Amino acid sequence: MKAILLVLDGVADRPVRELDYRTPLEVAHTPNLDEFARLGINGILDPIAPGIRAGSDTSHLSILGYDPYEVYTGRGPFEAAGVGIELKEGDIALRANFATVDEKGIIRDRRAGRISEGTSELARALNKIEIEGVEIIFKESVAHRAVLVLRGKNLSYKVSDSDPHEIGRPIKKIIPLDNSFEAKRTAEILNEFSKQARNILEKHEINKRRILEGKPPANAILLRGAGKTPKLEKFKLNSACLATTAIINGIGRLVGMEVVQTKREYGDRVKQALEILKRKEFILMNIKEADEAGHDRDYNKKIKIIEEIDEAVESLRDFITENYLIVLADHTTPVSVGDHTGDTVPVLICGPEVRRDGVSHFDERSCVSGGLGRIRGRDIMPILFDLLGKSEKFGA
Amino acid sequence: MKAILLVLDGVADRPVRELDYRTPLEVAHTPNLDEFARLGINGILDPIAPGIRAGSDTSHLSILGYDPYEVYTGRGPFEAAGVGIELKEGDIALRANFATVDEKGIIRDRRAGRISEGTSELARALNKIEIEGVEIIFKESVAHRAVLVLRGKNLSYKVSDSDPHEIGRPIKKIIPLDNSFEAKRTAEILNEFSKQARNILEKHEINKRRILEGKPPANAILLRGAGKTPKLEKFKLNSACLATTAIINGIGRLVGMEVVQTKREYGDRVKQALEILKRKEFILMNIKEADEAGHDRDYNKKIKIIEEIDEAVESLRDFITENYLIVLADHTTPVSVGDHTGDTVPVLICGPEVRRDGVSHFDERSCVSGGLGRIRGRDIMPILFDLLGKSEKFGA
Repeated sequence: MKAILLVLDGVADRPVRELDYRTPLEVAHTPNLDEFARLGINGILDPIAPGIRAGSDTSHLSILGYDPYEVYTGRGPFEAAGVGIELKEGDIALRANFATVDEKGIIRDRRAGRISEGTSELARALNKIEIEGVEIIFKESVAHRAVLVLRGKNLSYKVSDSDPHEIGRPIKKIIPLDNSFEAKRTAEILNEFSKQARNILEKHEINKRRILEGKPPANAILLRGAGKTPKLEKFKLNSACLATTAIINGIGRLVGMEVVQTKREYGDRVKQALEILKRKEFILMNIKEADEAGHDRDYNKKIKIIEEIDEAVESLRDFITENYLIVLADHTTPVSVGDHTGDTVPVLICGPEVRRDGVSHFDERSCVSGGLGRIRGRDIMPILFDLLGKSEKFGA
Repeated sequence: MKAILLVLDGVADRPVRELDYRTPLEVAHTPNLDEFARLGINGILDPIAPGIRAGSDTSHLSILGYDPYEVYTGRGPFEAAGVGIELKEGDIALRANFATVDEKGIIRDRRAGRISEGTSELARALNKIEIEGVEIIFKESVAHRAVLVLRGKNLSYKVSDSDPHEIGRPIKKIIPLDNSFEAKRTAEILNEFSKQARNILEKHEINKRRILEGKPPANAILLRGAGKTPKLEKFKLNSACLATTAIINGIGRLVGMEVVQTKREYGDRVKQALEILKRKEFILMNIKEADEAGHDRDYNKKIKIIEEIDEAVESLRDFITENYLIVLADHTTPVSVGDHTGDTVPVLICGPEVRRDGVSHFDERSCVSGGLGRIRGRDIMPILFDLLGKSEKFGA
């Protein structure tokens, strides 16, 4: 038996006034998800705990069986792992942006014109920066995004961002967020890195060319989201991670999953998952787009995405006769709010041996009456492992 | 957005044989509470945890987001705060009764004839008691009730009561409840206080007058419910507390709420709450009377009180279009038992963005099928803060 955990990122919503107080999941035509609900056991789920507004990162950690309060100190390490850096426990990682500053050091573009070329050369140049007692790893990600990793002793993640999160301001000096020697030292290292990065980028051929082409130069680095790389127990199934965002891939990589480049179309992704399952036991599949529609406050788009996903999952109908499929949202992203909220999300588990419960529609309210009741993210893996027959008996 | 937490103290019940196995909440005609249920999301709630028989104090602490197992050591501090004493963390506080003992020291009246006059003068006299190394604060409350606070180093709440809880017996010697030096010392201080109090009260003018008037003199102090004043994080909303009992007011005061003297009639109290909300974000409103009917084992009175409360809350109908209202019981007080039990209680949350769930009656059983499922007291504040848009996102 194999299993797919299909995370429909941010798909849950609150009643939408313009939809006559129904949610996009309630309004969307979803014959396949509904069939899975009908064949499955359903419920509602607190990704972390009731009322807690989960990020995608903390929620995925929780659902995969890790305690985010223990292992999550900031987004940096998960992003860094997501772009392929082999992190070691204790590494301090930060998210970075290539940005454009003027001659006075004022930020003119936080994304350097959404630079899309040459960032790997720029990153290579920044990797040459040497600061005593610490190893520096800088790697480009998608577009203007990048990550910075500090490796060494006496480092701390308790440091502020240098990114002021708006233009027209100077880069902020990073300060320690507690009184420790380690935080003070880490802040100094990061400020020194920023200074040296500024010098290297300013003189770099790629930026000279950009200026000639009338493009904003990527002449500064903004840092944010420092976190310490946690010790994560390896995920107990031979697994792959299929996601389009670096952070989810990062989580997958950090817990020992094979991270696979996903296809573009939903239908292709689902087929890809089935193909990969020939050699794996478990797939974490994250579909990001409904969350983005939530952030954009666009309920029509959200409905459309849900219906497209529903069509794509039709090819899982055979899979569930012998295997297990879990479908859930990692959090609610109401179109009325445009950000994550702490509401429950619907969850369904279908497969050969679940106790079917009469729920016939996969949405926030129909699942309330399901056989799972109200559970938490941390409950999902024990339930799945038990269904797969992979749990140890506790006692006799 | 603002919020009201309406606690219908002890309103929940068990099926009553004489009511054809329905509960007072099920029998009572409650068109307004039912409308709130219909417009809201409903559920059942374990005030502390399943089966735990909560006091009003521990339940309110839990619902306000505090861990009663951590902060609650006895009723004393909450009573003391309720009568207006400015407590400091670590203060040991006890509930006290003015009582009547005879010449042999036998208790003849645990409430000194429910003395209603002169207790502030008696309390002032007792405040003059000096015992080395400890500050003594004694303050009268309603009728025969009072509180005693010990402030200083090396004190403990692990001491027994001096109140034997029945007449015809002598005042009990207070003994330490563990082997610590602090408990031994505190017991000695309290016994010394009781002795000196006895002398002072015996000679007091007020008692001489009472004897002449044929009233039982308030010539002794009975102590019970020692507790240590906890460190309580300030409640995060600008709040007021509207309650008729000292203990709830004490909790309100200890967590930093403005404690307001409530009106007598339910309707006036609700209007008062709405008035106060013009300058506050949150009101904790406790209506005590249904609990008293439960303790009195009087289901007819309980039904009548529920119906009177229901009429009073009609004026909240406008409030909930833009704001949040939570209605719940802090515990079950079955008329068949006459005391608190550990059953679940019904809870409803209504306001602009909740997922309405089809529940149309506010009672112990109708709420079972609601969208909240079964939650705990500690879940209420995270859920409310999220609805109010006042939660930090955990992760990204």
